[in-house]
Amino acid sequence: MNEVNDRITTELTAQMPEDWNVPSSLRESMNYSLMAGGKRLRPLLVIAACEAGGGSREAALPVACAVEMVHTYSLVHDDLPAMDNDDYRRGKLTNHKVYGEAGAILAGDALLTHAFYSVVQASRKHGIPAERVISIVEDLAEYAGPRGMVGGQVADMEGEQGLTSLEQLEYIHLHKTSDLIMFSLIAGGRVAGVTDAQLDALRTYGHHIGLAFQIQDDILDLIGDEAKLGKKTQSDVKQQKVTYPYFIGLEASVQEVARLTAEAKAVIAEGGFANSQRLLEIADYLMSRDH
Amino acid sequence: MNEVNDRITTELTAQMPEDWNVPSSLRESMNYSLMAGGKRLRPLLVIAACEAGGGSREAALPVACAVEMVHTYSLVHDDLPAMDNDDYRRGKLTNHKVYGEAGAILAGDALLTHAFYSVVQASRKHGIPAERVISIVEDLAEYAGPRGMVGGQVADMEGEQGLTSLEQLEYIHLHKTSDLIMFSLIAGGRVAGVTDAQLDALRTYGHHIGLAFQIQDDILDLIGDEAKLGKKTQSDVKQQKVTYPYFIGLEASVQEVARLTAEAKAVIAEGGFANSQRLLEIADYLMSRDH
Repeated sequence: MNEVNDRITTELTAQMPEDWNVPSSLRESMNYSLMAGGKRLRPLLVIAACEAGGGSREAALPVACAVEMVHTYSLVHDDLPAMDNDDYRRGKLTNHKVYGEAGAILAGDALLTHAFYSVVQASRKHGIPAERVISIVEDLAEYAGPRGMVGGQVADMEGEQGLTSLEQLEYIHLHKTSDLIMFSLIAGGRVAGVTDAQLDALRTYGHHIGLAFQIQDDILDLIGDEAKLGKKTQSDVKQQKVTYPYFIGLEASVQEVARLTAEAKAVIAEGGFANSQRLLEIADYLMSRDH
Repeated sequence: MNEVNDRITTELTAQMPEDWNVPSSLRESMNYSLMAGGKRLRPLLVIAACEAGGGSREAALPVACAVEMVHTYSLVHDDLPAMDNDDYRRGKLTNHKVYGEAGAILAGDALLTHAFYSVVQASRKHGIPAERVISIVEDLAEYAGPRGMVGGQVADMEGEQGLTSLEQLEYIHLHKTSDLIMFSLIAGGRVAGVTDAQLDALRTYGHHIGLAFQIQDDILDLIGDEAKLGKKTQSDVKQQKVTYPYFIGLEASVQEVARLTAEAKAVIAEGGFANSQRLLEIADYLMSRDH
């Protein structure tokens, strides 16, 4: 996976070259957050889904970069003083602490907009049919927009004033986290030109690993190793945030992660994919991660 | 033009119906700024360019709505305390004064993202070929993104710390204002399927009326009628903002507006368009406007 990770980073850099005709402070601010040491989970999923469907890694790269730009913009805006007001992310100063609030707002806007430019390059550089590319554009706008990730973020902000049910928690996680993961899988499948049944399988897989990912985050916050996580544990308890362990208990949460992971793998294993190995590995990796 | 304006407003409302599956506060916040009484200049230009090329008004509507969403998001983010910190726009409270800073940031993000969804509906609802639609997506990302409008906004923010040349002022106006106007015209032409030469003519027309629009704004701020403008004049002088009249004088600025308008009209008149009347009228209207 490290090799794929490096390829994604190279491609992200290539999309914003040093001689790019934009104000240098804007390019630096965008680049700072794109290169801030994320896991690159979402672009890895785009590539894994594309390869599962028999497509090439190279053809998946423009969409892989797009989803990383969208994920990064969402973190930059989330960290703003008016939102979560975080000074650090992954041990580095957040964007607005380095480039100011206006710089962070505009870098986020630029990353979100440029993501759609990147998607179109799947057609321009790799000949992916225009019909498939507009479906990817439509999906990205849907899963990242008001009915998707932004809607989840709004619900999360409102939830801080008193979240009451497991149903509301699931709504927030579905839209704030799973939607972009589902998009990554569906879009990778679309690049490869998989069948509608396979798109459904990728969507279900994405839904399940997205939810498992979030529950695992809640579990690690409760019982994880601070050294491995690189942050203090028990922050949810201290902030009185409602989590899966809060609602259903720690033991049931661990079982739920295992159940979701097994179901995600099963739907892919039965999907008739040309090469599903990496998708199966990613599901296992996410379940067993300790940071 | 009032009839077209009403049609745009109806379509914008239809794109965010009351039973839309998004948090109601997000829908309200998006809607508040979309319905805050703008001139709808950019969507009118999309429709005028499409009709000039022999396309239908209805087919141009998804792109017309998209450009209005992008324009609106840019105003919502520009007005934020970290940016221009404006409490009022067109006599109404700005978005963040009503929905809070987080609400305004997220409404802007949602409008920008949903704009791309709207563009794709040109294909879904009106059968515009996918090849044309991805060119429109690519253009929107280019003209509204880091190399376009966002870049212009960054340059403008930086310019407030000491703008020195007419060249810098033109860079800011080109990207902050003209880029989205040029996009509107090119996109309208693309919906209609005009020739490459006609796309060039629309781009030149857009460049010229965009610049004329901005110079006219500077002129009105200096000598306009406060009652008609609905705001105080001389604000640029008081804020020591550099403007066209500052650099080249009032008389030369008035002449420049007239020259740009005449050239814009000439390039359209000679472009071999099926129906260029409305584009010619809009150029005259913009030059003679008093608010």
